[in-house]
Order: sequence, then C-alpha cells, then structure tokens
Amino acid sequence: MRVMKIAIAGFGGVGRATARLLLSRRERYRRLYRRDVRLVAVCGSRSGLFDANGLEADRLDVLEAGLTGPDFVAATGAEVLIEAGPSDFRTGGPGLAYIRSALSGGQDAIVISKGALVHSGAELRQLAKRSNALLKISGAAAAALPTIDLLDHSLLGSTVIGVEGILNATTNYLLDAMTSRGIGFEGALREAQAAGFAEADPRNDTEGWDTAAKLLILANFGLGLELAMEDLTVTGIQSVTHREIEAWRADGLVPKLVGSLLYANGGVRADVGIRAYPLADPFAHVSGKTKAIRITTDAMGETVAMSHGTEPLATAAAALKDLEHILKARSAEGPPREA
Amino acid sequence: MRVMKIAIAGFGGVGRATARLLLSRRERYRRLYRRDVRLVAVCGSRSGLFDANGLEADRLDVLEAGLTGPDFVAATGAEVLIEAGPSDFRTGGPGLAYIRSALSGGQDAIVISKGALVHSGAELRQLAKRSNALLKISGAAAAALPTIDLLDHSLLGSTVIGVEGILNATTNYLLDAMTSRGIGFEGALREAQAAGFAEADPRNDTEGWDTAAKLLILANFGLGLELAMEDLTVTGIQSVTHREIEAWRADGLVPKLVGSLLYANGGVRADVGIRAYPLADPFAHVSGKTKAIRITTDAMGETVAMSHGTEPLATAAAALKDLEHILKARSAEGPPREA
Repeated sequence: MRVMKIAIAGFGGVGRATARLLLSRRERYRRLYRRDVRLVAVCGSRSGLFDANGLEADRLDVLEAGLTGPDFVAATGAEVLIEAGPSDFRTGGPGLAYIRSALSGGQDAIVISKGALVHSGAELRQLAKRSNALLKISGAAAAALPTIDLLDHSLLGSTVIGVEGILNATTNYLLDAMTSRGIGFEGALREAQAAGFAEADPRNDTEGWDTAAKLLILANFGLGLELAMEDLTVTGIQSVTHREIEAWRADGLVPKLVGSLLYANGGVRADVGIRAYPLADPFAHVSGKTKAIRITTDAMGETVAMSHGTEPLATAAAALKDLEHILKARSAEGPPREA
Repeated sequence: MRVMKIAIAGFGGVGRATARLLLSRRERYRRLYRRDVRLVAVCGSRSGLFDANGLEADRLDVLEAGLTGPDFVAATGAEVLIEAGPSDFRTGGPGLAYIRSALSGGQDAIVISKGALVHSGAELRQLAKRSNALLKISGAAAAALPTIDLLDHSLLGSTVIGVEGILNATTNYLLDAMTSRGIGFEGALREAQAAGFAEADPRNDTEGWDTAAKLLILANFGLGLELAMEDLTVTGIQSVTHREIEAWRADGLVPKLVGSLLYANGGVRADVGIRAYPLADPFAHVSGKTKAIRITTDAMGETVAMSHGTEPLATAAAALKDLEHILKARSAEGPPREA
C-alpha cells in the first residue's frame, strides 16, 4: 500500500488534537483511499519528534529538543505539512516559514493558523500554483464552519453578491453579556477574562482583528480577491455604549460583530463592525461559541451555515477534512509522485 | 475544445430554468473547464428538441411532437442527462426510465426529481457503479440547501450521529399560520391553497411524504444507508390540534415538521414528525420557503445550514452545481472518453 507521510508543525492544543485524531483514523484512510498515512514528524517551537515509520499516539508526550524548523520538516520526507502554530498576521507567525518551505518543495499544505495566510496569502497561493502543491485552509477560515467549502463546492457556478459572518466567539460572549445583563463593555470583559472566554490582551478579538483576518482569508482564498488588511474598515465592540445596547434591545434587535463583503458598483466593500439583527433573522441567535456565515448569490439566494463544536477537536477535524480532500485528489492522479 | 453534450428530460418550470441557466453559463464552462458545453436535446412527456450543434435559448419555446423518451435521449449522443420530470416515489415517475437508460449507457446523470431516487435508489447506484457513470442528486436532496455536500465534503471524516431537517415549505407555511393566527389546520390549508402555497391535493406535503422522500434520499445517497419508505415512521401535520399549538406557544416553542435520522444502539432510527423548538434554536426561525438541516457529528459538533432561494432558479442552480462537479471530475481524468 502506498504511504503518505504527514508532518505537523505547531504542537500546542490544536496540533496535538490533530495528531491524535489523525492517528485514530489511519484505518479509515487505508480503507477509503488505500493509503498508509503516517505521522512521521511533529514539532513545536523548540522540540519535536521524527520517525520515518510513523509516530504512535503514546510517543507524542515527550518531544526531543532541537527537532524543529522548516529544514527539519523538509528532511523528514513528509508529503503533507499540517501547520498549527500560533497566529500572527502582522508578521506571518512562525508558520509562514514552514508553509513557504513546504509549498516551494511541492509538499501539500494544510494551514490552520491564520497569520501566514493574512500576511502572505498571495505569495503562498503563487508558490502552490508553481509547484503544483495543494494549499488547504479550512481550519483557518473558521474551523468547523463550512465557508470555503460553500464558496468552492456547494454554491459553485453562482455569483456571490455578499458575505456576512459572525466569526468570533469572544465578541459574541461580550455582546451577549452586555445585552442580557445590562453591564458595560469593561465589566463584561472582566467577567469574560475571569471565565477564560477572553484573553488578557483581548484587543485582537474585541477590536475586530480576528474577524477581519478570517474575512480576509475568505475573500482572498474563497473569492479570488486580493485584499490587504488596509482595504478593510474595521470597527470593534470596545466603544459600544450601554445606551446603544439599550436602544437595540428596545427595537427588538440583537447586536453581533460581523465581517461582511458586499459586491457593488463593480467593486467590493469589506468591513468589520456591529450589525443589529431582528429576532426573525437566524444571525440574532448565533451566540457563544457558535459561528455563522451567510452567503448571498444571484441564483441560489441566501445560504446560511452555523457551526458549534468542541475545540480543539472541531478545528482538528476541519484540518483533517482538508487531508481527505488531498487524499482524494492525489489518489485520482494515478501514478505516485516521486518521493 | 472538447465538447460536452447535455440532454434535459422533463421540461416544466425546473427543466426550462435549468436549460436557460446552463446556456447563460456556456462561456464560464469554456473558461474554467475548457469545455464547449452544448444543450443538444430537451424533452417533455410528448415533445422535444434536438440539435447536435446545441440548442439556443430562443428555440426552447416550441417543441416538436414525438421527440421524447429514453431512446430519443440515448440517440442524441448526450454525455450527461439532467432529469427534471415530475416526481412520483410510488412508481419512480417518468424519470426512472431516463435515468436507467443513461446510467446503463455510461452517461452521467443529474437527477432533480425525487421519485426515481426513492423508488429505485439502490438499483441506480448499482447501475452507476457498474458503468462508471456519475450520479448527482443535489437538486433532489433539497434544492439549493447543501445537504449531500455537507455529508460528502464539508464534514468528511467525521462520524454522523444525527440529522434533522426542515425540508418542506408547505408545512412551514401551514404551521406558521396556525401558530401566529390561531387558526386550525383546515382553515390554514384553505388559505394556503388560495395563495398557491399548497396543492389541491396537499397530502404529499401535509402527511409528511415529501419530507420523508428527501430524508430517505439523504440517508441512502449521503450516508450509505439502505432505507425504504417502510423503514420510516412518518407523521404529518394534518392532525395537529389548536390545543397542541397553544400549548407549544405557552411554552415558548415553535413547531416544525422535521425529518430526522438518529444513530443509536448500533442502528439508525428515521422518522418524520413535528418537533417544537425553543426560540434560541435556529430551527425555530426557519419559516416560509426556507429549508434547513442540522447534522451532528462526533468531531465537528453541530453544523446547521439554511437556504432560501427563488424557485425554480435555485433548484436549477443546484443541478448545475452538480454539472460543474461532473465537469471537474471528467476534466481531471485526462484522456477524453469515447463518444
């Protein structure tokens, strides 16, 4: 049976969940794709593991110092890189070097962290095209929520008119708390931080940047646009006042932080900001960790998707959905690629 | 440029909308798939049209008597059949003979009407497998709502635990009217019939059979089950009483006719009946012509999709999404098939 070698770069919660889920599905891959899928390498920022015969789950707890970096991964002979490192869209994060190296060498890449895709998306798409590598990004686009899938697969042929997404759990939580209990932004934030729903520095979420990053990835990878962060108008929730919250409530509206793309007058407008929805709109009921997207097309009308899963498992499953699409594509090709 | 010849059998509203949309997208097919897609034949129950060079939109209004039937379609040399005839799941409808003939001859088939899929789904899957033909059914599974797509593509790798769908517009309309205006089933039905939202004989919708047919197609084509109508417990909305409606309303619940599949104890339970949802559930807000599905999996949690489009355009677009998937698959194959 043909072997497919996988490496995972970035070995925090999501990377580990992905490794475990992948190992639990090896029999499935054998049965459906006739492939012996081996996890040959994993690495974090300082340490890693390598075994050409494949790592087993019980070996993943103790990493060896020094086994890390793009050159380490390249030397493992992995055909597919799964990148799950920390996300930093201002620098591309540590993932960028791994993804560059993989795609340049013709390895397929499954990207979970958003940083590199936001920072250097166009370059990475070019690299993949040039080396005929597959670049899959479901995990980065909004974890288990089908977004790219809808654009690429379910709505294929129809022309997108607009996209609207509730893509950030922290702002959902904060707006919920402010609306349902009449507390202000600062109070809601302290509560959320105490409960683990907001980070110590919450600005990436509250100021809309996380939503903007996901919207940008959708626009550039799903819709063929070439937007940069500067092209987006980004407003967060940090300045929402109690009076605004009360006014929405009085009008029967529910505020959400939304990323949106609208095609109009031959161009596209992309922004992130608060929109308030009436109760009859499914978006009014997207709360907590649920994420949602609404795509409007010329021929298929409105399509809404919502997703609520347990993390990091759901994100790992999204990345491994990408792996199955790679397995399908590479199996359909016939002759094995040169190792 | 390679040609791909298409025939449409069943030429009512949906068939005509599909023909028009297909012709409007010929340039797209050339550009994306390097294929000259030609609509070489259309036919209704008594008449049709044929032109090996491709029919244009302005010729579709006047059909010629006698040009109809599976043998007529087979003789046109079409490589893809789009079946859009009337649906009858008790006999398979007129579509069954067309689909059988196409698949037996190795033609790919895009099926929009549900009848044949419910009546002879297993046989049609076998025929397709034997002749290496593609059998696509998005239009039948619930028009523009992604259902099969979610199972086959977006949730790939995760194990389905349950499926719940609001799949019928007529019962949505009737339950809405009964709940919001306190009228009984018979009164709501007369209103709906007058407004064109319910058929003269509404039992296919109101007794749950339309929902059951869609659920069965999802189960058998999307989940690899082998269910027959007799395996489903089907309850409609015709016996709902004013008292039940009032009780739900008092409890803050919204009743919907739902088709559901639940895996439990090594088996699967399939039924159609009323479920009442709290307002926080997105299903409580699926009304009118909106359709929805919720799929629960082990790894990706809950995924909900909703769709609202203008018919028959949205169904035509779903069928032509299937066509693009066929174009992709057939383009990836390399050498042209023998004509």
